Amino acid sequence: MRNSIITLLTDFGTRDHYVASMKGVILQINPKCTLVDISHQVISHDIKEGAFLLSSAYSYFPKGTIHLSVVDPEVGSPRKPILLVTMNYFFVGPDNGLFTLVALRDKVKQVVALTYKKYFLPQVSTTFHGRDIFAPVAGHLSLGKNPRAFGKEVDSWVELDFRKPKPEGGKLVGEIFHIDAFGNLISNIDEQQFFNFTKARSFIIRVGGRAIQRLKKGYCEGKKNEPMALFGSGGFLEISVREGNAQKILKVKKDDQIIVQIGK
Amino acid sequence: MRNSIITLLTDFGTRDHYVASMKGVILQINPKCTLVDISHQVISHDIKEGAFLLSSAYSYFPKGTIHLSVVDPEVGSPRKPILLVTMNYFFVGPDNGLFTLVALRDKVKQVVALTYKKYFLPQVSTTFHGRDIFAPVAGHLSLGKNPRAFGKEVDSWVELDFRKPKPEGGKLVGEIFHIDAFGNLISNIDEQQFFNFTKARSFIIRVGGRAIQRLKKGYCEGKKNEPMALFGSGGFLEISVREGNAQKILKVKKDDQIIVQIGK
Amino acid sequence: MRNSIITLLTDFGTRDHYVASMKGVILQINPKCTLVDISHQVISHDIKEGAFLLSSAYSYFPKGTIHLSVVDPEVGSPRKPILLVTMNYFFVGPDNGLFTLVALRDKVKQVVALTYKKYFLPQVSTTFHGRDIFAPVAGHLSLGKNPRAFGKEVDSWVELDFRKPKPEGGKLVGEIFHIDAFGNLISNIDEQQFFNFTKARSFIIRVGGRAIQRLKKGYCEGKKNEPMALFGSGGFLEISVREGNAQKILKVKKDDQIIVQIGK
Repeated sequence: MRNSIITLLTDFGTRDHYVASMKGVILQINPKCTLVDISHQVISHDIKEGAFLLSSAYSYFPKGTIHLSVVDPEVGSPRKPILLVTMNYFFVGPDNGLFTLVALRDKVKQVVALTYKKYFLPQVSTTFHGRDIFAPVAGHLSLGKNPRAFGKEVDSWVELDFRKPKPEGGKLVGEIFHIDAFGNLISNIDEQQFFNFTKARSFIIRVGGRAIQRLKKGYCEGKKNEPMALFGSGGFLEISVREGNAQKILKVKKDDQIIVQIGK
Repeated sequence: MRNSIITLLTDFGTRDHYVASMKGVILQINPKCTLVDISHQVISHDIKEGAFLLSSAYSYFPKGTIHLSVVDPEVGSPRKPILLVTMNYFFVGPDNGLFTLVALRDKVKQVVALTYKKYFLPQVSTTFHGRDIFAPVAGHLSLGKNPRAFGKEVDSWVELDFRKPKPEGGKLVGEIFHIDAFGNLISNIDEQQFFNFTKARSFIIRVGGRAIQRLKKGYCEGKKNEPMALFGSGGFLEISVREGNAQKILKVKKDDQIIVQIGK
Repeated sequence: MRNSIITLLTDFGTRDHYVASMKGVILQINPKCTLVDISHQVISHDIKEGAFLLSSAYSYFPKGTIHLSVVDPEVGSPRKPILLVTMNYFFVGPDNGLFTLVALRDKVKQVVALTYKKYFLPQVSTTFHGRDIFAPVAGHLSLGKNPRAFGKEVDSWVELDFRKPKPEGGKLVGEIFHIDAFGNLISNIDEQQFFNFTKARSFIIRVGGRAIQRLKKGYCEGKKNEPMALFGSGGFLEISVREGNAQKILKVKKDDQIIVQIGK
């Protein structure tokens, strides 16, 4: 496995010096590694959004990429820093459920609790483990260190309960999981689940007071100002407006319901 | 021509995983290429703003740089994906006019319609050609592939009509083309056109209800809170406020008129 | 000293083409250098905020890193462009006080006024020295050029007066120096000064109408919705709210007072 690419995902924003400090620490250890930002605009402390964005991007990177991910509201508490080794990637970050979705998709081979202080910065603050623990560990890992060098293997790690859409009395009840920069409303209903539920019958998708009865294949099939439903590039049911902003038009918020029901 | 630098310009924003997915795809194909962001905050679906930002930055990069540009409201429609080869650069993106301004400045040698699916991702979505078509093509191009490897040459490509300022009854009527992060109002009147029109006569520049009668050479020549006119770093007539925000003070919007007239 | 890493800190924002133009200029000179953003969202024209962010991040980078920093409200005026060489780093930018804080921490060995036009772009605008002077100088410097190649050594450079907290009638009066993306209120009172003042006596920290009588060690020790005080990752007294936003809860602004007083 090549492992000289490190991605970064945090809720630190890009105004402050936090992300740059992490990158500096990595480059001190491995000046040759390639750093790629996934996002630093995860909603503050929103582990589930971080998990979603990470799970949407990680698999497009070369095998062996190290995904350094820090959404860490419990920094300084006893929550463990971990390294999760999957079939194809490495994930470094807090053990708080941030890796729940990637672990569902890429088989976990090994989980290591990061305990060997030799690979931390000499002074570890209680408020910024991204810089003091996770960045140096990712840097050393990118030099080819064995995962076991960083601590003891553990058997379990934190998995969050991502609510899955449920069939209820002839309805499939999901929720809006993410709203992207275009205002597209991305739900937690995936293509397979949708078609397993609808089974070629006619359906109505209800969201934000609207009823949508057809699926489109691409944004350009929609009419201006009219919400349409389609499966987006991540495979989830998505509500969009052609050259417009579905969030503004429908006034839907994150976590709002989206319902699929059978019949006209 | 060296071609291991790839720039990225999109309207995808930086909150979501979209840009990172494109970068991952490129790095899978060419782990050694250098990725540089131009901007991901082009106004959603605003092809003209994308064209302006691209035309402002592209020429500062080394010859042979690949400019990957995706502002693509018609993704999934029959609009063509293209590769435009100019005297000095490569441009990869949708054929929707995004390359109009660069083609006016850097002579076009060859235009290729991207049709050979061998260089796309195995599954091409209808909603994200940035990741599924443009990124992998840019990646393979950065390895030195011949442009003809990606599809057939075509004779024409889409050019947008960028309104040019026009002399009308003794006035030169332009518009505010871009407003930058400082609130500077950048017009579509360039230095040559301005001086061809004014011919050393005295003039009045009218914008947002103000009349400006002098040109300054730099921001530091202005007075606090008072709008001034000067030619900015891109060579266009610009309205600015020293250490202030011209947009907020003048309450001018993108596309508003700016008029140059002769006489006091 | 290795010097093929260049960091960038500006108030240019990320929407426009300005930062990309600077990066293109550098890559034309040294296509192999590594570019890392510190921040481009310094408040427009706020030299002191730029100085703070730079001083918070610079030391985490490898020795020999070139820190290219442009917050330059007086661009085009006679303010000098300079190169400051410290024990461990290079700093390139306008001589306006932006380097005040780093010069307090990393001993200055040499200051060079950038005057040799050979290392500028052929045409130097009056409005964008970041692209036309500072970027090409940083690029050439990253190739190993001697600092003296860029101009004459000078004896003095501009230092800004960063107000320090002062003991006044039994109180230590500081101010909120920076508010980060989490809404944490970072003051200019450092750990040493705090303990020198309180000398193990009991204390009250007054900020935004609240009184805080204890220090926490980490964010996770706080209660929800209740402001707490702690020393942050940069070593300064900071007011935070566990998984919340202290700025919104306390309605405190940048430059507002924070007072430490002795006794209950």
